[in-house]
Amino acid sequence: MDDASLWDLKDGRLLIQTLDFFTPIVDDPHAFGAIAATNALSDVYAMGGTPATAMSILAFPTSVLSLDLLQPLMQGAVEKINESGAILCGGHSIDDDTLKLGFSVAGFVEDDSEWTNSGAQVGDYLVLTKALGTGTLSSALKSNVASKEWVDSMVESMTQLNCVPQLLVAEIRKGIHAATDITGFGLAGHLLQMMRASDTSAKVSVRNLPLLTGVRESLRAKNLNRAHKTNRDYCESETHWDDITEDEAWLTLDPQTSGGLLLSVAPSRVDQLVSVLRAKFPVTSVIGRVEAPVSKSRVRFIDSKQ
Amino acid sequence: MDDASLWDLKDGRLLIQTLDFFTPIVDDPHAFGAIAATNALSDVYAMGGTPATAMSILAFPTSVLSLDLLQPLMQGAVEKINESGAILCGGHSIDDDTLKLGFSVAGFVEDDSEWTNSGAQVGDYLVLTKALGTGTLSSALKSNVASKEWVDSMVESMTQLNCVPQLLVAEIRKGIHAATDITGFGLAGHLLQMMRASDTSAKVSVRNLPLLTGVRESLRAKNLNRAHKTNRDYCESETHWDDITEDEAWLTLDPQTSGGLLLSVAPSRVDQLVSVLRAKFPVTSVIGRVEAPVSKSRVRFIDSKQ
Repeated sequence: MDDASLWDLKDGRLLIQTLDFFTPIVDDPHAFGAIAATNALSDVYAMGGTPATAMSILAFPTSVLSLDLLQPLMQGAVEKINESGAILCGGHSIDDDTLKLGFSVAGFVEDDSEWTNSGAQVGDYLVLTKALGTGTLSSALKSNVASKEWVDSMVESMTQLNCVPQLLVAEIRKGIHAATDITGFGLAGHLLQMMRASDTSAKVSVRNLPLLTGVRESLRAKNLNRAHKTNRDYCESETHWDDITEDEAWLTLDPQTSGGLLLSVAPSRVDQLVSVLRAKFPVTSVIGRVEAPVSKSRVRFIDSKQ
Repeated sequence: MDDASLWDLKDGRLLIQTLDFFTPIVDDPHAFGAIAATNALSDVYAMGGTPATAMSILAFPTSVLSLDLLQPLMQGAVEKINESGAILCGGHSIDDDTLKLGFSVAGFVEDDSEWTNSGAQVGDYLVLTKALGTGTLSSALKSNVASKEWVDSMVESMTQLNCVPQLLVAEIRKGIHAATDITGFGLAGHLLQMMRASDTSAKVSVRNLPLLTGVRESLRAKNLNRAHKTNRDYCESETHWDDITEDEAWLTLDPQTSGGLLLSVAPSRVDQLVSVLRAKFPVTSVIGRVEAPVSKSRVRFIDSKQ
């Protein structure tokens, strides 16, 4: 259930490999290219690594879409790959009925410095680096009820590289006990995976969750997709939502595309970490804490400010 | 124009990365899985390397095909990945309109031992390890005019791992000056790429080309696909077909799926090499020689036995 595979290079480094691709979630080709690249690079960051190479996976419907879209599509992707310090080094494309874009990304991390989702410790603080809501906002966009402001907020977040490992000095880095990126399973699903892997429980205050522009309104209008429901099915046997509204529950289950990192952080390092991350990720928030395992209740969402 | 990307690990090794995926070319899911894996692994072998990891790229039409097909499909792939010594370590799958399967493969080769398509030397012998004809036979299969014998011959060839690097002692290996695998551009196209990259020319005797079962008959029946024509367009300005039949010209242009390796080999090593390879690749043939560059005629196909 980790974000990528690790291969021991036996020279003090681990090779990180990851692969992801999907259909467009926005109309603008440059933005979609940037989102697809940012999303694929994210799994390397979630393991604490530095991206090195990316290979493209492209399915393009030449009979439906103009080839003129290819240039901004790949340009958007290459800009993000270059920003990460990696290089695009090949790939494969086919003619297909619908557009799909993704990348296989490789990166490196020093042995024993890798982050996994299994190291959370009782007493850790849970830190989230991006706002939630790409699932409900993209549903709104598909139904043509999303304002430009909503879409801009979503695209800005989805194209922000999760380059957290590169921002941290060794002392702060050592305080991060577990990490994952928030994607299709939503905050609740990925947090549940981390708590299972670590054999701990988590308590999260929904009042502390950072939100993209328009998310409350979009949830109120019930802009949901299939993954909201499958995420609830996935989580509900081990997750409790205490005294929070239905909309807030859906927020915790909202499937993210290119979402933020969720970090489980030692109490002694959390203030420094949040301060460093806010310079680049202004919404970075302490959203909850790790507790001793409780049977049938790995994750509990509560209403109060912690 | 090489088969994969190389990344210098700066510890005496190069990381090889490659990515390929496509739609089914045979009906049997187990065979298609094995072909997709063998084909993706081939690019690592073509660089002289050893595969280590594979990640799957799967598009599956859940509304059209039974999920029961997934098990034999992936089983066929995993068998070939395991046979190569690599491991399947993740991947990504989506629901889609048509089935596609492929892999991103990573492998390793010692620094300065990598094969590329740019090292062919005047006087080298050209060696081909698999029979030609998967393009015309798969066209025949699509038109329902392929016999079971033809399909069996094609599938057997397409699921044979190109594990040539693992068969060679260092002295023979050093005699291989250039290598590539024969895929979509056909023998003519990939040979042309090698001759361009090496700034040499090649003379190939079509009488020496090994053929899959049914290929002459299938070409006589004009079972061709679009790639036959685009390969001719790609090659014809620098390729000569001297006194050979039209069917034989199409054979040189036949697009291969999971085709053999084309090796440019020092005269002093060619007999040993062919002898070693024939134990595993019985059709291995010396098909031609490398000559000094000739303007506008990088590749010449002739009729005579060399």
